[in-house]
Amino acid sequence: MRALPRRVRITEVGMRDGLQMEPLVVATERKIEIGLALIEAGVRDIEATSFVSTTAVPQLADAAAVIAGLKGRGATLRALVPNANGARRAAAAQVDRMIVFMSASESHHRKNVRRSIAESLAGLEEIATVARGAGVALGGIVSTAFGCPYEGNVPLAAVARIVEAYAQVGMDEVSLGDTTGMATPPIVAAVVGGLRAQFPALPFALHFHNTRALGLVNVMQGLELGIDRYESSIGGLGGCPFAPGATGNVCTEDLLNMLNELGIETGMDLDRLIRVARDVERLLGRPLPGQLMRSGARLAPAQAAT
Amino acid sequence: MRALPRRVRITEVGMRDGLQMEPLVVATERKIEIGLALIEAGVRDIEATSFVSTTAVPQLADAAAVIAGLKGRGATLRALVPNANGARRAAAAQVDRMIVFMSASESHHRKNVRRSIAESLAGLEEIATVARGAGVALGGIVSTAFGCPYEGNVPLAAVARIVEAYAQVGMDEVSLGDTTGMATPPIVAAVVGGLRAQFPALPFALHFHNTRALGLVNVMQGLELGIDRYESSIGGLGGCPFAPGATGNVCTEDLLNMLNELGIETGMDLDRLIRVARDVERLLGRPLPGQLMRSGARLAPAQAAT
Repeated sequence: MRALPRRVRITEVGMRDGLQMEPLVVATERKIEIGLALIEAGVRDIEATSFVSTTAVPQLADAAAVIAGLKGRGATLRALVPNANGARRAAAAQVDRMIVFMSASESHHRKNVRRSIAESLAGLEEIATVARGAGVALGGIVSTAFGCPYEGNVPLAAVARIVEAYAQVGMDEVSLGDTTGMATPPIVAAVVGGLRAQFPALPFALHFHNTRALGLVNVMQGLELGIDRYESSIGGLGGCPFAPGATGNVCTEDLLNMLNELGIETGMDLDRLIRVARDVERLLGRPLPGQLMRSGARLAPAQAAT
Repeated sequence: MRALPRRVRITEVGMRDGLQMEPLVVATERKIEIGLALIEAGVRDIEATSFVSTTAVPQLADAAAVIAGLKGRGATLRALVPNANGARRAAAAQVDRMIVFMSASESHHRKNVRRSIAESLAGLEEIATVARGAGVALGGIVSTAFGCPYEGNVPLAAVARIVEAYAQVGMDEVSLGDTTGMATPPIVAAVVGGLRAQFPALPFALHFHNTRALGLVNVMQGLELGIDRYESSIGGLGGCPFAPGATGNVCTEDLLNMLNELGIETGMDLDRLIRVARDVERLLGRPLPGQLMRSGARLAPAQAAT
């Protein structure tokens, strides 16, 4: 085995990426309970909500209340902001981190936010100004970084264009999103390798989907490249509502189990996390794709102790 | 990326490992149709059935008829044989390969076949004699090679004990079975590395389950170790009926997609295989765990051609 990172940070995105597309609007109190249970299980970085249009995404209309309920309870709270107005709402709600999102491919970006990439890039500085003014950290997601369901392969230059714009407004981390599960180990190696050569000082996080059963295979490739920041979703909740056939974020507890088995530290507790996943599954009333919530860890506690 | 094998052989086990545990007894003609469709999709090695007790496993009571229907149609036909009587039936049916199976852990072995490992080892030479007499190739499976649901970790020596017995009766290939999905990349590296050191001339195949979402991650580890023989099941059908919480062989078309994306040759056609998986899903009337049958390949044909 190659040398892997000794410690990895997992960002839990289920409350945002998962709940935003559920037909059921989950009550604010339930969301806060989920967030607190995640923190109790050792999660220290939560993408808790999104300050998008409350009419377009009623599931997340309670963004400020969710942040208020989780603030100061032990985790960094991230929230997506689609524009300067969202950034102002996020700042007022006292999020710890604002996250901007843009696709590397024009057609996916347009379907997602109904603007061109150029138009979104032009609005970036205004968002950054809001974040700076409020003293809130700012990060960015590059969606469709490993492929676009409409355009196919995405050139590295198209990904680098967004990363460059993110770096210019002072972001201290960029997440590469595998929006519809098109990443493969060779593509991960090429994209991460290419971006690192151009942006050697910028930390990257990886956000894979399991649409083609390669979510954890791609995490493994990321680990072998030394990437130590991953995003995943409790129970495997969520996906991308605007992409055809898209299902399944990498499942947090399945990812945690793999990291545990690789001897990589996360500070998270698998059994507690499995309990949270089962609670979320019950709450939503449908089976989630996570495996560990059914199988449990490979060794029973008594076996693991020997 | 490390150097991976340029070509990999996939053994399709769904007709045996999958159908043996289905509540529905699939009609012989339907089985033969599935087998022929698999061959049409480029599958060249099929574990087609098992010559076990027809009263204990009525799903496979038509073993000889299935072999007759697929014989000489372009694929090597394997069949499991639990004992010398099964071997004689398999020889009479003119299988191309007989496969013996034993668990590396005593408790799993006893639950599976109601005999001790020592008793089964004692019967090995009789089976080998039948195979030799009929001029049929003989291989073996070591179940619970990466962990046992009852005993936990399985010592390398326990696996090696079975492999040694297999080698002594002249087997030309041994498959290591991850019966309940307990394999992890470090364990795969340790078991494969340890066995190769002891049996440098013996080819090993790997048979993983996706119970803990690590099936393809473990294949990736196997590839990096240079292993070029894998077993998987169309649609992800099957598992182990005698193990608690066991679900899901690695899915053949999901595995094929990964190998395609890694540039590894198999001679198999993904689109055709996906059609077979969908047909099997319709036949069984319940969703199978395969991902590619829902997502399709990452690029549409027009995108892939450019």
